[in-house]
Amino acid sequence: MIEETFVLDKNEVRNLIRDRKVVQLRSYLTEMYDADIAELMDDLNDKVMALLLFRMLPKLQAVEVFSYLSVENQREIINAIGEDDLPYLVDNIFFDDVIDMIEEMPAEFVNRVLINIPPEKRKLVNQFLNYPEDSAGGLMTIEYVRLTENMTVKNALDHVREIGLKKETVYTCYITNLHEKLIGIVSLRALVTEDPHKKIVDIMEQDVIVVSTKDDQEVVAEKFKRYDLLAIPVVDHEGRLTGIITVDDIIDVMEQEATEDFQIMAAMTPSEEEYLATNVFVLAKNRVIWLLVLLISATFTGSIMKNFSDTLEALILLGMFIPMLMDTGGNAGSQSSTLIIRGLATGDIKLTDVFRVLKKEFLISIICGVILSAVNFARIIIFEPQVPILIALTVSVTLITTVMMAKVIGGLLPIAAKKLKLDPAIMAGPLITTIVDALSLIIYFNIAQAVLNI
Amino acid sequence: MIEETFVLDKNEVRNLIRDRKVVQLRSYLTEMYDADIAELMDDLNDKVMALLLFRMLPKLQAVEVFSYLSVENQREIINAIGEDDLPYLVDNIFFDDVIDMIEEMPAEFVNRVLINIPPEKRKLVNQFLNYPEDSAGGLMTIEYVRLTENMTVKNALDHVREIGLKKETVYTCYITNLHEKLIGIVSLRALVTEDPHKKIVDIMEQDVIVVSTKDDQEVVAEKFKRYDLLAIPVVDHEGRLTGIITVDDIIDVMEQEATEDFQIMAAMTPSEEEYLATNVFVLAKNRVIWLLVLLISATFTGSIMKNFSDTLEALILLGMFIPMLMDTGGNAGSQSSTLIIRGLATGDIKLTDVFRVLKKEFLISIICGVILSAVNFARIIIFEPQVPILIALTVSVTLITTVMMAKVIGGLLPIAAKKLKLDPAIMAGPLITTIVDALSLIIYFNIAQAVLNI
Repeated sequence: MIEETFVLDKNEVRNLIRDRKVVQLRSYLTEMYDADIAELMDDLNDKVMALLLFRMLPKLQAVEVFSYLSVENQREIINAIGEDDLPYLVDNIFFDDVIDMIEEMPAEFVNRVLINIPPEKRKLVNQFLNYPEDSAGGLMTIEYVRLTENMTVKNALDHVREIGLKKETVYTCYITNLHEKLIGIVSLRALVTEDPHKKIVDIMEQDVIVVSTKDDQEVVAEKFKRYDLLAIPVVDHEGRLTGIITVDDIIDVMEQEATEDFQIMAAMTPSEEEYLATNVFVLAKNRVIWLLVLLISATFTGSIMKNFSDTLEALILLGMFIPMLMDTGGNAGSQSSTLIIRGLATGDIKLTDVFRVLKKEFLISIICGVILSAVNFARIIIFEPQVPILIALTVSVTLITTVMMAKVIGGLLPIAAKKLKLDPAIMAGPLITTIVDALSLIIYFNIAQAVLNI
Repeated sequence: MIEETFVLDKNEVRNLIRDRKVVQLRSYLTEMYDADIAELMDDLNDKVMALLLFRMLPKLQAVEVFSYLSVENQREIINAIGEDDLPYLVDNIFFDDVIDMIEEMPAEFVNRVLINIPPEKRKLVNQFLNYPEDSAGGLMTIEYVRLTENMTVKNALDHVREIGLKKETVYTCYITNLHEKLIGIVSLRALVTEDPHKKIVDIMEQDVIVVSTKDDQEVVAEKFKRYDLLAIPVVDHEGRLTGIITVDDIIDVMEQEATEDFQIMAAMTPSEEEYLATNVFVLAKNRVIWLLVLLISATFTGSIMKNFSDTLEALILLGMFIPMLMDTGGNAGSQSSTLIIRGLATGDIKLTDVFRVLKKEFLISIICGVILSAVNFARIIIFEPQVPILIALTVSVTLITTVMMAKVIGGLLPIAAKKLKLDPAIMAGPLITTIVDALSLIIYFNIAQAVLNI
């Protein structure tokens, strides 16, 4: 039966729970995907109801649904379920999900979870908790199929059959030697298609793309994109296999990295927390620091205007064009910096491309500057005949200069940041605007003084 | 042998090609991954050298490398290779890569490629070319394993063995009935672990997550993220299986969708082309239209200032604070709109959350507004003693009001856009800044008139 994803309406669920229509609810739940049930629970915004729903699920499905839940709801459930159910839950979620969960939880929950993990696994959990959350070590799972080089294809397939069902991925198997060093990989596809009597050592790929436990998650994501992988092995500094990372986790990483860039580019301290789940004070804190820094920087524009207050006082009309000039300069600069920041992030632009970028931005800025300036000049002449032609000319020349300067600065600063090992994303709209605003005021008043002889 | 990815230095390659050291070059090439060779060719910036390099590759590897190349270099190669090699190339790249390639190419290349596709496949290519590039139909491939319900597990495995090597993915097999309708899926993992005598119909999963050929690629990416898939079947309006989409293509789609959002948010017409490969005039065109629209909108600020020119003339000091007020308002609004746009894109925020967003932004804006305003007031009193306290007060009150207004507008407009079926990303920094600038000027002058009795 193929059909559109079956999702229950949350109000309907609320009613069914309130009316204690357990049988009906259960039959609905069996038709739903685990990810959808988890979303439903998160959406209910009612912890008691979410818990009631969770208790209705068959044990094994409950484990699956749990791993899709928000951290908030995971906490609720760990808090609420008894000592009888917790060991089952903890033992049956995938290893990397346990690690993620523990990393997000306050200490009292961590202890309750750790106590329920069998001692031999607990040691491993503690080891994994030492890897930074954003590193390959923090992303990896220990659930994979390990083979030895002397197995035959038939042995290997039997081994996969025996333990495969418990592993997060069986599609790539990893071959290690006696010292646990990774010496090759073999795909399940190869195991299925090769002669069963061949030895693993003869069919394995020895040229393996790996990451190190300390590698940043961006490096890991880059390799997945580049080589179209489904999983990547993680090795320690001596080449020993410590875990694997699967593509579904990398999809989350990519989304998270893009979100981080969006936040930094809009002058915020990046945060992994979901907007709606984050406290107002935390959100305010992430924003106010950068607003303050930019506010203080923007007061420079005030000093510049003060220096030119004679000019301004002599011709108050000049002031009318300042907001438009500043906005346009900021927009032109943001366009350039955004393209370059994104290009650096996706790898389309490299540090060595700096002169190509500069040349391109310079040419683009001439084209854009001339068009904007011409349109603006015509607009003033036609719609504001009271503005003297010399002022219209001053505004137009400033506009060209500002756009050119904004685009070159916007193209250059992200690359400079990367060269200085800073995140290029800080060189985005808000900062570029502040810099360009100050410079364009200086240009404007100087041109005005020259052209108008004030 | 496990080692860091082996990548040749491009200058070294240039030298090797110039010196005709073919043997040495070939031995290097066999040690490199296909994706790295393709990048090397793209990086060479020298079409003749890239072509020489390509010709050195063994035929089958050449096909793999080809599929990783930039469109520009793909064109070069199709243009350069003779009628003997083209059929081999065209016949051996994966079906979805052929479609992608044809979509990006000018007509004369398309014909050369189409002529070299066998007639039965050509019909299929033409059908696929009719799907919009950004739809599920435009992403899918026809290379997958199809089974029937009456096969046994053993039959199925034999079938995979026979044809599997040619397919882009064999890890999920698709079961169709006589009318080509998709009736279930079975994973290779299940085939390997189940009893070989069982029937496919008894072990297949009937509850399949599918997309329709017409679905937008964002919908497809959403399902991959939600259900952690490796591949998804694509069906037509009658439920017939027309193709599958694999996770590696979805990773590219996600990156492309994020890039598009970045571009729209910085007020540009989105483009899929790589920055460095795009013509200056195209880049200028993508930007200048939005700059013009925003420039015209920003002239409203001029009219507002003109209306208050008496106030401004009476107290030129008021003008000094305008750039800072406008910048801060713009920044505060951009922060909010960016978070909401990104939340809507990742699905963390839904249309129904509008009141939760409004409440949050309102509270955050009070916290941010009060802090900014207090710091700014202190700064004026301490560092600019010549500014009368009433003006400092006017600026501070305007700052609070502007920040509050900016954050509420920045939170609201992206949701409103989505409600109106517009792309929320247009309601980002540049547009928000323009709106907030105009409103904050009105607020500023009105407060000034009231407080200062001008």
